[in-house]
Amino acid sequence: MPQAAVAGALAAAREGVSVVLVGDEGAIRQELRAQGGELPVHHAPDTVRMEDHAAEVRRRKDSSIMQAMRLTKEGDASACVSVGHSGATMAAALFVLGRLKGVERPAILANIPTAKGFCALIDAGANADCRPTHLQQFAVMGSVYARLFYGLPNPSVGLISIGEEPEKGNELTREAHALLQKTPGIAFYGNVEGRDLLKGTTDVVVADGFTGNVMLKLAEGEAKVIFGWVREALTGGGFGTKLGAALVRSALRRVAARLDPAEYGAQPLLGVDGYAFIGHGSSDARAIKNALLTAKRAVEAELLPKIKAGMAALEPARAS
Amino acid sequence: MPQAAVAGALAAAREGVSVVLVGDEGAIRQELRAQGGELPVHHAPDTVRMEDHAAEVRRRKDSSIMQAMRLTKEGDASACVSVGHSGATMAAALFVLGRLKGVERPAILANIPTAKGFCALIDAGANADCRPTHLQQFAVMGSVYARLFYGLPNPSVGLISIGEEPEKGNELTREAHALLQKTPGIAFYGNVEGRDLLKGTTDVVVADGFTGNVMLKLAEGEAKVIFGWVREALTGGGFGTKLGAALVRSALRRVAARLDPAEYGAQPLLGVDGYAFIGHGSSDARAIKNALLTAKRAVEAELLPKIKAGMAALEPARAS
Repeated sequence: MPQAAVAGALAAAREGVSVVLVGDEGAIRQELRAQGGELPVHHAPDTVRMEDHAAEVRRRKDSSIMQAMRLTKEGDASACVSVGHSGATMAAALFVLGRLKGVERPAILANIPTAKGFCALIDAGANADCRPTHLQQFAVMGSVYARLFYGLPNPSVGLISIGEEPEKGNELTREAHALLQKTPGIAFYGNVEGRDLLKGTTDVVVADGFTGNVMLKLAEGEAKVIFGWVREALTGGGFGTKLGAALVRSALRRVAARLDPAEYGAQPLLGVDGYAFIGHGSSDARAIKNALLTAKRAVEAELLPKIKAGMAALEPARAS
Repeated sequence: MPQAAVAGALAAAREGVSVVLVGDEGAIRQELRAQGGELPVHHAPDTVRMEDHAAEVRRRKDSSIMQAMRLTKEGDASACVSVGHSGATMAAALFVLGRLKGVERPAILANIPTAKGFCALIDAGANADCRPTHLQQFAVMGSVYARLFYGLPNPSVGLISIGEEPEKGNELTREAHALLQKTPGIAFYGNVEGRDLLKGTTDVVVADGFTGNVMLKLAEGEAKVIFGWVREALTGGGFGTKLGAALVRSALRRVAARLDPAEYGAQPLLGVDGYAFIGHGSSDARAIKNALLTAKRAVEAELLPKIKAGMAALEPARAS
């Protein structure tokens, strides 16, 4: 268990989260001692490593991710947060928690900072190949999430495509567009384009997991590159520029913080029968603390029963 | 003909491009007089408007885009540059110029500014649904372009996916990966992810036109949002921040210019039997000037015969 995970867990515990650490007990207790903290530990002798195949997880019942998911399934924990192998986390969640009724494909939801606040991008990478009904289910789950987490009574839903008109796009989006138009319980805005993501045109952005993952990683990567260029321009200039840079540093830091994934913690895996969160692989202590706080907030807001209700409301519409 | 197009054409003419303006002769001559310039005009009584369907273009032989494409086909012009309806431009190019041998789907190439220079994103939006062989052809055409325009003897080619391993991605990318590995005449790097686009991991980035178009518009839109935030942070602060902002203004302007699509002009439509360029719909005079300079450069560099040769080299590999 790395230093950052223990530090993040201790920080979350100080803010009221009851954290159980799952992993190699000896190593965790040692790190807890080193940091002068105390938390309950659930021993798991095995670890799924980044280079392992996600599918292996089913056979590795003693791994930390399978043990943590099992604790969640059995009610000993309310939620499972993992910053490890995201494929293995998804596989473990599907295997142990199972799918919710009406959800064909659980999906990852990513909070994207926008000019207007946040938007919920779903699916951010769980399903590389999707059918129109999958996108419809993502829209319903994303709407429930945006209602609870963004406090919006009627969040708007955009479908990522390559033109605003319903007939623009690929085969998948054209069929999904027609389906979303007649989906009850969501406020379908219509097609949106790549530029709409950070503009915040809609509160929810629906995409297949391939497109969604490419978008998420592009958005994160571009912010890094642009701030790198800004840093270079400000430190590479003459005396006036350097003086100016010193004066605007804290203002620019606040802008960079708006785009830092660590700010908005972990990404929920929606559509499984339990609370599962996937953190960034490169999470620092603050990201881990925020991930644990996000998990607590989801449980307290009753995200899971509300998603169940949203999916149930979709059923009669699908049967008709 | 809008004011920007005439101004851009006059500026390009001053830098050595022989421009023929195609459109309503009366309106163009009036604008030329207003700007105090002189250029040859080819009269086209009809205009395809943004709200028209692209497919209509075939029936509208008197439209400016069809007339400009016809001039190119017949050798009266070396290249056609359009900043109008991009769908109509593609349809006219396909109809009048035709496809190159070996190219199943012509594709749009976009120059993306990266941390290392530029990369060629292909397809940036011409083909929403692609097959693996289309992506292979995009890779060959993109490599020829990068060799000529970026001066690279052996440009690297990345395939956009959602994981570095060959088996990561969707059905299309898994098959395309296998095909690209055995494609002669290109330097296939392997899969790249969304974050690699602006990092400049590879010189050419291959994507289906849906993903490519979403990426292009996301990248452009995000830059606008981030610079909006920076402006807001610098003008909204106290005296110190405002003073600092004044001192760093020109340094930040240079960063913003790096991301301005107008800097790199128009996007070539590769795979048609002629030179066709599609400019941004919101092009200003500078963008139009740069688009015309780009077209001239492509003709002088013999981009078209070199793409033909690249496609011919692919043929025996495909037949075997």
